[in-house]
Amino acid sequence: MAIVSVKRPGDGVGHRHRGGGHGIRRLATLGPLLLVLGWLSVSMAAAQDDPLASWNDGSTKQSIVAFVAAVTRAGGPEYVPPAERIAVFDNDGTLWAEHPMYFQMAFAFDRAKALALQHPEWKDRQPFKAVLENDMAALAAAGEKGVVELTMATHAGVTTAEFENIVRDWFASATHPRFKRPYQELVYRPMTELLTYLRANGFKTYIVSGGGIEFMRPFTEKAYGIPPEQVVGSSIHMKFEMRDGKPVLMRLAEVDFIDDGEGKPIGIHKFIGRRPIAAFGNSDGDLEMLQWTVAGDGRRLALLVHHTDAEREYAYDRSSSVGRLDRALDEAEQRGWTIVDMKRDWKAVFPNQ
Amino acid sequence: MAIVSVKRPGDGVGHRHRGGGHGIRRLATLGPLLLVLGWLSVSMAAAQDDPLASWNDGSTKQSIVAFVAAVTRAGGPEYVPPAERIAVFDNDGTLWAEHPMYFQMAFAFDRAKALALQHPEWKDRQPFKAVLENDMAALAAAGEKGVVELTMATHAGVTTAEFENIVRDWFASATHPRFKRPYQELVYRPMTELLTYLRANGFKTYIVSGGGIEFMRPFTEKAYGIPPEQVVGSSIHMKFEMRDGKPVLMRLAEVDFIDDGEGKPIGIHKFIGRRPIAAFGNSDGDLEMLQWTVAGDGRRLALLVHHTDAEREYAYDRSSSVGRLDRALDEAEQRGWTIVDMKRDWKAVFPNQ
Repeated sequence: MAIVSVKRPGDGVGHRHRGGGHGIRRLATLGPLLLVLGWLSVSMAAAQDDPLASWNDGSTKQSIVAFVAAVTRAGGPEYVPPAERIAVFDNDGTLWAEHPMYFQMAFAFDRAKALALQHPEWKDRQPFKAVLENDMAALAAAGEKGVVELTMATHAGVTTAEFENIVRDWFASATHPRFKRPYQELVYRPMTELLTYLRANGFKTYIVSGGGIEFMRPFTEKAYGIPPEQVVGSSIHMKFEMRDGKPVLMRLAEVDFIDDGEGKPIGIHKFIGRRPIAAFGNSDGDLEMLQWTVAGDGRRLALLVHHTDAEREYAYDRSSSVGRLDRALDEAEQRGWTIVDMKRDWKAVFPNQ
Repeated sequence: MAIVSVKRPGDGVGHRHRGGGHGIRRLATLGPLLLVLGWLSVSMAAAQDDPLASWNDGSTKQSIVAFVAAVTRAGGPEYVPPAERIAVFDNDGTLWAEHPMYFQMAFAFDRAKALALQHPEWKDRQPFKAVLENDMAALAAAGEKGVVELTMATHAGVTTAEFENIVRDWFASATHPRFKRPYQELVYRPMTELLTYLRANGFKTYIVSGGGIEFMRPFTEKAYGIPPEQVVGSSIHMKFEMRDGKPVLMRLAEVDFIDDGEGKPIGIHKFIGRRPIAAFGNSDGDLEMLQWTVAGDGRRLALLVHHTDAEREYAYDRSSSVGRLDRALDEAEQRGWTIVDMKRDWKAVFPNQ
């Protein structure tokens, strides 16, 4: 499948390496001076190889770099041992796009359309009728109950192994309606740089998302370098069964856990069992995760991505039905949390853009 | 607090290092030959430094070593990349003792006695009356309902931070009725060696236990080298609350998840999201975890600890009410899983024994 790699040739990382190469070749023409100047070319390459190259210089980038410097400075007053360097990231709207609808909702739509062949009754029944007719107003009218029904019909009734294959197949074929690219390529390049930067500084990076845990796990390792065991998300119940003498886990149409809002600190405590020292979100659903993170002792980083860039991505906050940022924006301003202004702070939004 | 370390001076590891030192000093007397023989002393030290020194030689130890050799041999037909080297361990009866009662039950008894001062009505009410009078027959008569009520009364109604302190305080003071040692010193030395050996070979080691996840996390790092984020266990629900402007997680008297029997593969899939390649248990509650582990493709290791040593620890299996090993023993024998005969296979059971 065509999952994007954060290190694919042609992205910013490769470009910077080529730049460094030119510098070294220029130095080589100086002949004997090369040996003496060797250390200099190394120093120059290091300076050019900014791990946060997609971030414009300014207070936002500075707050990230200053935090990492403080907690990694051995012997410093704010030093944190590597085992406790836990960083948690929301996914939708924080690591990848979430408009015009959550990508998992687009998956549910496509899956409902594929399953409709086996469910002729859906063409007259909400919320399925709305999905089959692309009638967003009717779907909205079906409310939360309709969304839960759609989710269960499209996410349950199969084994965990079957569901993983269904998700992988969808990622391999579906494309975003505006950007015409596979969804897994709509990850934010500055954020994948940030993940890599934190891990290079001894952090363990986790996703803590309202999205389905089994919808995310098939792509997080390739897209973000985050392995399945570091993904926390919403879930439905499972049942252990023997099928032809082999054990399977059946996915049941019952909600187990909603990892959103007040659920995020609970998910963190249940899955990780340590309080993070850094938390990254973009909406009111992330507020309690940020509150929980900063309530610990010592230096902390709380960051919100504010979508301010209608041209390169989207601009939305207080009145958006997807990824609303209202209470959390007030609290971030009041408490001095770091707020990313996407338009101002990010040199690029997506890979290869 | 006096939590035992697997590397404390005086245990088998330190002893072997001293043995290696004697060998090197003897070689040094040979003078010029030292340089030539240097490689030999290194080889000898490696051979003497058996990472599984508390295991007697035999088919059990051999099956473990052969498995690890096979999955770590680069280019070999059974090679498994490090990221997929997941090993899961039951806790009670597999990593530490569980008789005469689960240690968490001893904690619940002690906690109930402490809380009884605030609950004068308990002296006339089961199951509390049974606990306060150490009346095991009456407690057994109260059945599962009684155990759940006792568990909720002693594990809920406090914040997660308060509960962690309560557990730490208990471990610092309580001792085992037969061995007169702190409970956290009743870990099995051969098993802590095995954990260390697996990690040295690139494995990620997890606990997957029916025990309470928050009862285990305060001691697993020091006792087993297993950090909180690699502990899977049973849990009760939590609630996010603001207390004096600070967020807390309140522990509620409602079961969330029972990580036992059919729950273990579910816990593994939910928390880890990968199928383990090695699983270690000791009772029927571990059977589905072992079935789930061996159902994956490629080389697998399934191991049961059989308690056969009444003198050094306990001897029990098919008829024990704590840690019953019956169906799982049949299936292990039938499928050729590795069965540890504690009396035959273990040189020592506990540290410093």
